[in-house]
Amino acid sequence: MALPAPDASPASLGELLQALAGFSAPGAGVTRLAYAAHWRAAHRWLAERARAMGLLATPDAAGNLLFHPAQAAPGRGQTALLVGSHLDSVKHGGRYDGALGAVAGLLLAAECAGRTRTPVVGFVTGEEEGSRFGGTLMGARSLLGLVEAAELDRERDESGTTWRQALEEVRAHGGCAPLAAGDRPFAPLFVPALALELHIEQGPVLEAEGLPLGIVERIAGYRRWKASVEGEARHTGTTPPPMKRDALAASAEMVAALEAVGAESGEAARATAGNLRLRPGLFNVVPEHCELWMEMRHVDAARLSAMAAELARRCREIAARRKVVVALQEVSAEDPVPLDPALVQKARALAEELGLRHRVMTSGAAHDAMIFARAGVPSLMVFVPSRRGISHSPEEFTAAEQLWTGYLFMRELCLRLAR
Amino acid sequence: MALPAPDASPASLGELLQALAGFSAPGAGVTRLAYAAHWRAAHRWLAERARAMGLLATPDAAGNLLFHPAQAAPGRGQTALLVGSHLDSVKHGGRYDGALGAVAGLLLAAECAGRTRTPVVGFVTGEEEGSRFGGTLMGARSLLGLVEAAELDRERDESGTTWRQALEEVRAHGGCAPLAAGDRPFAPLFVPALALELHIEQGPVLEAEGLPLGIVERIAGYRRWKASVEGEARHTGTTPPPMKRDALAASAEMVAALEAVGAESGEAARATAGNLRLRPGLFNVVPEHCELWMEMRHVDAARLSAMAAELARRCREIAARRKVVVALQEVSAEDPVPLDPALVQKARALAEELGLRHRVMTSGAAHDAMIFARAGVPSLMVFVPSRRGISHSPEEFTAAEQLWTGYLFMRELCLRLAR
Repeated sequence: MALPAPDASPASLGELLQALAGFSAPGAGVTRLAYAAHWRAAHRWLAERARAMGLLATPDAAGNLLFHPAQAAPGRGQTALLVGSHLDSVKHGGRYDGALGAVAGLLLAAECAGRTRTPVVGFVTGEEEGSRFGGTLMGARSLLGLVEAAELDRERDESGTTWRQALEEVRAHGGCAPLAAGDRPFAPLFVPALALELHIEQGPVLEAEGLPLGIVERIAGYRRWKASVEGEARHTGTTPPPMKRDALAASAEMVAALEAVGAESGEAARATAGNLRLRPGLFNVVPEHCELWMEMRHVDAARLSAMAAELARRCREIAARRKVVVALQEVSAEDPVPLDPALVQKARALAEELGLRHRVMTSGAAHDAMIFARAGVPSLMVFVPSRRGISHSPEEFTAAEQLWTGYLFMRELCLRLAR
Repeated sequence: MALPAPDASPASLGELLQALAGFSAPGAGVTRLAYAAHWRAAHRWLAERARAMGLLATPDAAGNLLFHPAQAAPGRGQTALLVGSHLDSVKHGGRYDGALGAVAGLLLAAECAGRTRTPVVGFVTGEEEGSRFGGTLMGARSLLGLVEAAELDRERDESGTTWRQALEEVRAHGGCAPLAAGDRPFAPLFVPALALELHIEQGPVLEAEGLPLGIVERIAGYRRWKASVEGEARHTGTTPPPMKRDALAASAEMVAALEAVGAESGEAARATAGNLRLRPGLFNVVPEHCELWMEMRHVDAARLSAMAAELARRCREIAARRKVVVALQEVSAEDPVPLDPALVQKARALAEELGLRHRVMTSGAAHDAMIFARAGVPSLMVFVPSRRGISHSPEEFTAAEQLWTGYLFMRELCLRLAR
């Protein structure tokens, strides 16, 4: 490979990932929920690392962090190639999801500083996973100035804290800038000419095919619903089965219906019920109320809409037959998004040139790149393999040499695209 | 009816029930978990009411309360006709379950004092529902001295408090006597010659047939299981369906299997999944672990055993097919119990004599009377109707005149049986 001698190394990349994984709530794996204490500590630590590499680390008003050379000043309409990923994790997730792209963005901004016409700016979005707030992709949306002020008060976490309150706490710790006045509280610090994201695949395809690189041409869309199922609390021992209005039995049938709709919607369909909460939760009382969380994904917009319509129909049929009341609330949704075909083509050509085996593929997982692409920013994602395809788990793993191969490919891509 | 003029009245019965319902944790309906603050307050209040009626109120070491005339001294092998029910409730339950029989026991002890050869002693058991501890029927078992010391440390509530610790707190408030030394911490205060319990039906049979009284000849047994279902946390968007090991999808199928086993086991079978808890509970992570609570009931011991065997077989089949690991733990179980045939006969004859329409029936719900009957104490239960058959719900209701009819019948039964 005709690359200049790198400043970063497999060891330095691994050390950064190792250190970042330490910023986690207790328990198995990595738990770094958006804006929480461990998140804030990770945010400070990344900013320190950037300064040690000769970069400025500028937080925006949403707690996204941007790594840039002093010459590329934020907030003045400066065009930049943005490269990075997200800082937050799921509960008990892995050490690579988001972290790989975030650390790579930092190293790439440092390595490319002064070498390109368009500045390469590293980004670390504050929220992507939806593990704390229902919104998801809040970091990328705020980075691009796409959020309206009302959403700051609408989004609440489990404890009732609003997005606005969470940001106030981050601001009190110096982790974000003040909100802008008016309807649009977040103003972009840079104008993205291109957006790139390095990420673990989180699925089994690259490992199964023995390939080091995936070039993503399309990201699946999703629908996330909370179903509220209202039955009736009755004594389990005395109520004849025909008189039961059992919220859990109805919800269990909806879980099966969701799985069936997924199975009927082609290989690219994904359908999972991720959560179920009920009351009162006793042996001798028929469950009165369930909240069931359901997610559907598809790379094809029409198929995704058809899945949603069919699931709604089946849930209503189940509810009517079981004499319970169901209300379906869509808590978040993204349509499938194509990434930039020209960038896909350039990435393929580069991989060919470097002799790196690869495939063009879709992403079943949502990513910040969806938001950039939908906003009209030419965007691309590059995947490295995930062992056994496992992610959102402490078992998440990608070998050091696989991480490094992905990083080197991204560096060459950045240098060429930013020229 | 050839009854002596009663001291109690429909109004006094209603007032006692109304006042007792006030001892509840906040929220809909009555929540009076065993030994908790509201339980302790209700316990003190009942003891005061008893003293105001000229009775002694003696708590045993388990926090069961016994109402008796001074002439019938506890702890000296005194034989007594016991009549009463339990003080605890389910979460957000009704105001009649347990309370009716407890209040009736108090009034009956007062009305019968000095009128019978065998003393009529009112009892209020401290724990019956299993809403706080997993054990269930702990009150009746301790009242009869059937509990071993080890169980005091084994039974724990959700917060980890043991039965022993809960009793220590009650004792600090004067609500129970010290434990006995040795293996058997509870010594019976009276030798029960007979045990009677007045209770709401909690089912729809009496209302549907327009009958004021049910004479219970048999109580259904039950099996209560916690299933632990272990799958694998994976990313919902990237994991192909055949690679998923989804603990919730497997548990949902077990809920359906439980329902099917119930439907295949005859009209007297009951089968309900009352609780399901899972982790991690996010939209984008395949559920890794579920705890599913399942209950089966039947009045026939062989059918109940067959239900349990069939459910276990189906759960194991589901787990194997879905590549999850299931462990089934039986947390409590009671075999069906026949009540005393001679007492059933005497109660029928009395109802005929008094011109009260009635039926002999089974109880799908478990009751303290199961423990008395199994211990060889001739035992009987009498039911009054429940509106719409609803119980374990704030909607639980029995009209004042129905309560009073049941009470008068019980009074006459007590007077005749204790002679």
